[in-house]
Amino acid sequence: MPIVTLLTDFGHQDGFVGCLHGVILTRCPSATIVDLCHEIRPYDVPGASFLLEGVRPCFGPGTIHVAVVDPGVGGPRRPVLALIDGQFFVAPDNGLLTAPLERARQSAVRELTAGEFWRHPVSHSFHGRDIFAPVAGHLAAGVAPDRFGPLIADPVRLTLPRARHAHGQVQGEVIWVDRFGNCVTNIPGESLASGVCVWHAGQPLAFVDHFGGVPAGSSAALVGSSGYVELFVNQGDFAKSRSARVGDEVILDGGAVESGQDDGRHIGPSESRARFDSL
Amino acid sequence: MPIVTLLTDFGHQDGFVGCLHGVILTRCPSATIVDLCHEIRPYDVPGASFLLEGVRPCFGPGTIHVAVVDPGVGGPRRPVLALIDGQFFVAPDNGLLTAPLERARQSAVRELTAGEFWRHPVSHSFHGRDIFAPVAGHLAAGVAPDRFGPLIADPVRLTLPRARHAHGQVQGEVIWVDRFGNCVTNIPGESLASGVCVWHAGQPLAFVDHFGGVPAGSSAALVGSSGYVELFVNQGDFAKSRSARVGDEVILDGGAVESGQDDGRHIGPSESRARFDSL
Amino acid sequence: MPIVTLLTDFGHQDGFVGCLHGVILTRCPSATIVDLCHEIRPYDVPGASFLLEGVRPCFGPGTIHVAVVDPGVGGPRRPVLALIDGQFFVAPDNGLLTAPLERARQSAVRELTAGEFWRHPVSHSFHGRDIFAPVAGHLAAGVAPDRFGPLIADPVRLTLPRARHAHGQVQGEVIWVDRFGNCVTNIPGESLASGVCVWHAGQPLAFVDHFGGVPAGSSAALVGSSGYVELFVNQGDFAKSRSARVGDEVILDGGAVESGQDDGRHIGPSESRARFDSL
Repeated sequence: MPIVTLLTDFGHQDGFVGCLHGVILTRCPSATIVDLCHEIRPYDVPGASFLLEGVRPCFGPGTIHVAVVDPGVGGPRRPVLALIDGQFFVAPDNGLLTAPLERARQSAVRELTAGEFWRHPVSHSFHGRDIFAPVAGHLAAGVAPDRFGPLIADPVRLTLPRARHAHGQVQGEVIWVDRFGNCVTNIPGESLASGVCVWHAGQPLAFVDHFGGVPAGSSAALVGSSGYVELFVNQGDFAKSRSARVGDEVILDGGAVESGQDDGRHIGPSESRARFDSL
Repeated sequence: MPIVTLLTDFGHQDGFVGCLHGVILTRCPSATIVDLCHEIRPYDVPGASFLLEGVRPCFGPGTIHVAVVDPGVGGPRRPVLALIDGQFFVAPDNGLLTAPLERARQSAVRELTAGEFWRHPVSHSFHGRDIFAPVAGHLAAGVAPDRFGPLIADPVRLTLPRARHAHGQVQGEVIWVDRFGNCVTNIPGESLASGVCVWHAGQPLAFVDHFGGVPAGSSAALVGSSGYVELFVNQGDFAKSRSARVGDEVILDGGAVESGQDDGRHIGPSESRARFDSL
Repeated sequence: MPIVTLLTDFGHQDGFVGCLHGVILTRCPSATIVDLCHEIRPYDVPGASFLLEGVRPCFGPGTIHVAVVDPGVGGPRRPVLALIDGQFFVAPDNGLLTAPLERARQSAVRELTAGEFWRHPVSHSFHGRDIFAPVAGHLAAGVAPDRFGPLIADPVRLTLPRARHAHGQVQGEVIWVDRFGNCVTNIPGESLASGVCVWHAGQPLAFVDHFGGVPAGSSAALVGSSGYVELFVNQGDFAKSRSARVGDEVILDGGAVESGQDDGRHIGPSESRARFDSL
């Protein structure tokens, strides 16, 4: 029972998502399709990369992830099929796979060139329906990966903003605001320790271990479910109440930080939001 | 083919829902997963309880409902598995199961304590992914309910506002506003009868048997699909046009009501929206 | 493995969609259910018809489409089951099937009268749950189409606005605005050719073959994935930036148009948005 996931910026108001389901199921009727998320901000490739990396560990080997945030559709950007640590990814080659690729122990990327696995005629504006979904359907139905096209060595990678040690501090930033207004940073949770002070917009935040560690309505920081430092308001909305947003600087000061090297080196992995400079 | 439903306040903009799907499917690949609703207002436990009770009758015995509206995540509130009239419910013990429990003919509730069925490491902020979904996956895969933890006798229950007879009237309130702006009350449909007058905000409303019983743009009351009195505008939006909202008083006057006892007793079952006072 | 799709104006905030899933799965546990779209604007029957027609080609023969945009629920409008070019459609008879019916090579429509396949008691306000979903479930489970009710010859059809040749131009209109703000018109893509000028709100638009054919932030026209002329802003939102909306006139002038007849005849098929005058 092959599992195919879908991650797009298509939203829910059109027929785009339904088309993907239909195209996959007509090629692999036994597929189980999971809608990971379709509310990626339009054209937000780094955001999609961040989300994909966070969800990936919840799925098993052989899962096929179809990720379509594709502002360059119809132009020269390549369509690709990647195998990353045992899972497949079908996506435009625009940096969307940066986060999974950077953390990969093993990866291989193919350019999709074998048109016999596409849906024809191929439109210039909806490769999700005409290239990515049909490839995923055929892959789910058992077509061997090497039949879709040749290996490539240079998939596009985004430059991701990483937290770094500097001047006795850890300097990071907000890279994602979730539904509850929690602000996920690119600072690894290991950086948080007793005695550390977290600063956002000139205000210090207490460090607790769960949302209820401060009274309802109060803000604080914790290590979130993705392993990174998050800023939150217990039963409230940090982003709204503090006017916080992606890109805001977040600083850790003192405690464990003092034992860190003060050399400006980057720390932590790369699920961070990237500057969108490589399409 | 086990059926697992999901009801959360996670929204659709993050990877939270996708994580639940992945965690369940890796434990039970044959599960059919149904997204009941993920747009519960953040932290709205009584709202989730109301919705769950309305949807429950559409599913069969053995269905596993995973319900995660969980402002107390990571704190002392218990995770539970309930068996209610032949269906399973996996949820935090914060009153979310109040409505199903109050209407149950048979129920049993277990505290989830058997960590071997959880996903490790267990985060402090996403028990949906780390406790509730894995338990549902194992349950769907055939693990016996008694292996997840011991029976408990005191699941948390919310105090639900019920309609009541008083002074020759039925006094109720709006407990849910749906997508179309229809205002669902906690007044059982049986209370509506020929001759009854429905009052909202000092205005009387006609009582009809379907939306088209009044001209497009006109407001009226009917017995809704959940069996309760609803206020609506035909092809319009009652909540918006009348500035109506949850908690608004709704009064039935005359007709069948006159035969009711004027003793202040509560009437009707308990799908009503509860005050959120027991987390 | 029968496939059942759902298209409604129910939104995602209530339990309505979950009910449909449950009712279908209890009647056909092996069904694969696809949520085509639930964000149709409330009561927008022509919009639903447009969307359905666009998605239909992505599914195979035998697919069962349940489409419920039903402002006349509980009144005299008939529930129907249509067989159109090998796919089934379960819907209210309010014009929702106009677009598929007009393009059909073969079609047959039955009125749903066999109450033994409904869910009882049948409410007056939620036939999706009580009539359409149970019929779809039984159909998916193998009940023969002719058991649901008799053939009818007069399904309701909406009057669709079609593009037409006039005064050496093609005159059409915007019939759909998608998630990205792209404005889909009712002008067939064949009308676009070298030398043609596209006009919207007194402004000319370049004609390109993919979004990247103009710089980011610039507007233009192309033949969209549904085969119709679309107006867009590359990596932007045409509808917002130009205050464009459904019903706006769009004119093609010159080039291929000059070879067209100037006789006011309608051109193109009928996926166009209809005036909603037949409920």
